[in-house]
Amino acid sequence: MLEHLTDAADPRLADYTRLRDVELRKSLEAERGLFVAEGEKVIRRAIAAGYPVRSVLTTRRWVASLADVLGPATVYVVSDETMEGVAGFQVHRGALASMERLPLPSTETVLDPAARVVVLEDIVDHANVGAIFRCAAALGVDGVILSPRCADPLYRRAVKVSMGAVFSIPYARMDNWYTGLDELRGAGFQTLALTPDQSATALDQVKMGDRVALLLGAEGDGLSSRWLHEADEPVCIPMSPSAMANGVDSLNVVAAAAIACHGLMRSADLSHQES
Amino acid sequence: MLEHLTDAADPRLADYTRLRDVELRKSLEAERGLFVAEGEKVIRRAIAAGYPVRSVLTTRRWVASLADVLGPATVYVVSDETMEGVAGFQVHRGALASMERLPLPSTETVLDPAARVVVLEDIVDHANVGAIFRCAAALGVDGVILSPRCADPLYRRAVKVSMGAVFSIPYARMDNWYTGLDELRGAGFQTLALTPDQSATALDQVKMGDRVALLLGAEGDGLSSRWLHEADEPVCIPMSPSAMANGVDSLNVVAAAAIACHGLMRSADLSHQES
Repeated sequence: MLEHLTDAADPRLADYTRLRDVELRKSLEAERGLFVAEGEKVIRRAIAAGYPVRSVLTTRRWVASLADVLGPATVYVVSDETMEGVAGFQVHRGALASMERLPLPSTETVLDPAARVVVLEDIVDHANVGAIFRCAAALGVDGVILSPRCADPLYRRAVKVSMGAVFSIPYARMDNWYTGLDELRGAGFQTLALTPDQSATALDQVKMGDRVALLLGAEGDGLSSRWLHEADEPVCIPMSPSAMANGVDSLNVVAAAAIACHGLMRSADLSHQES
Repeated sequence: MLEHLTDAADPRLADYTRLRDVELRKSLEAERGLFVAEGEKVIRRAIAAGYPVRSVLTTRRWVASLADVLGPATVYVVSDETMEGVAGFQVHRGALASMERLPLPSTETVLDPAARVVVLEDIVDHANVGAIFRCAAALGVDGVILSPRCADPLYRRAVKVSMGAVFSIPYARMDNWYTGLDELRGAGFQTLALTPDQSATALDQVKMGDRVALLLGAEGDGLSSRWLHEADEPVCIPMSPSAMANGVDSLNVVAAAAIACHGLMRSADLSHQES
C-alpha cells in the first residue's frame, strides 16, 4: 500500500528519525523493537530471513524496485528532501525498511549445532561488527556469540556493512561477561584467544578439535586479560618482523578476523578430510 | 617555531583547506606537492620515513606532543574552532602536518628486491587502499604496485587508515594499465589473479614460486577481464557453500587482501623452510 507523505515530521515516519544519531537510535529501536535495513539488496535479505516489515520509506524513483517482495507492507513515498529531512542524511540507496526484531536465540541454541564459532568481546564499532559478520558468514563460521557490551549487529550501519550477513548467521548475546567462557567450555569448545602477542602459537600451527571458539577482542585494547587467561590457548597471526620494527604492529580487527575465520574453515576442511 | 593564528582564511593555512573535499584536495595536493598526515602517531611515522615537514597545524592542547620531532618546522597554533574552520571538520586527533611528497620510485625499483608484491587494479576508495597497505606491511609483503587509476595512498584518509603503513612499504604506480602485467612477467613474477570465482584454484593450493605478484581488483567489479586472463593463474579464497546460497557471495576487498597476504607470507615461509 503506497502512501505519499510530504512532512518530515509526520509521526508515521518516526521509525526513521535521525538514523545517524547513535544514542537516539539505540533507545528508539529498543523501545519499538525495530531495526532499519538500507538498500534494496539488504532489505530483500532481511525479508528472506523472516523479519517482518513494519514499513518502507522510499522515493518515487525507487518505489518499483521492491514491489515484488513487500506484500501488504505500507510503503511511504516521499521526496528526496523529505527523506533527508527524516533520516538526517542523503540516503543514496533510495530505500529504507523498518523491520521487526525477532527474539534472539539463547547462546545454547547457537552453540548446540555449531562446530566453529566466533566470540566477540566488546567490539563497539558497528562497521567492524558488520564486517566481521560478513567474513564469518562467507567463510563458513556456524555462529557468533557477543559479549554483553558488543555493538548491536542489527544497527543500520552494521547491517549495511555486513551486506545482510547478520541475517544469515545465527548469533546470541551472553548474559554475563565474567562467566562468559564457562558455557563455551561446558559445551566442549576449544577456546582460542586471538592476540597480537607474537609469542603465542601461530594460528596455522594450532591443532584444532571438532569444536572451536575463536575469541576476538576490542579494537585497540584487544581481549581482556580475564578472557585471555581463561582461554585454552592464546593464538596469533604471525607478523612481519620488519613491519613490527617500523611500528606497523598489528592488523585491524576485521583483517585479523578474516584471516582467523579462514584458518577456522581450513581446519574444519582438514578434519573432514582426515575423518 | 610557533605562530598563533586566529583567521581560518589565513593564507599560511592553505595547505589544510577543506580536507574532506576530495576533488579540491586532489588538485591542491598535486599542485603543491604535499600530503597531510593526521594525528601524532602518523605524523611521527611520516617524519621517521623521511618526508620533510612543510608545517604543522595544531591546537594549544596538543602543541607539546610533537615538540621533540619537529625540528625547525613552523607550527601554527589555533583554536579548535579555527582548526574546524580550516579543515572543514572537527579534527579529533588534534594535530595535522603538511608534508612534502617525495618522488615515487619506478615500478622497477620496487620490484627489483621483492619476492612478494601486491598489485592493486583501480581500487578507488582511500580507506580500502590504506587498509590494504596496513595488511600488506604487517604481513611482510615487499611492495605494492598501483594501476594508473588506483586511489592515492598519501591521501589523508588512506594514510590514517593505514596507520602510517603507506610510509613503510615501497610502492610505485604503473604508467600503463594495458601493458601493466608485462613488466611483472618480465621480472619473473608469477601473477595470481584473485577472483571470487569458486572454480579457480584455492589460494592455499597454489604452488608459489620465488616471486609472486597477487593481483587485487576493484571494489564491486573485481579484476578487469584483461588482467584476469593475462595472469598466470586465477586463484580464489574458498567460501562457504551455504553462505553463497544465502547470497553472502564475497568478502570485501580488504578482508580478501588480508587473507591473501597471509597466504603469501605462509608460502614464503614454507619455501624458506624447504630450501
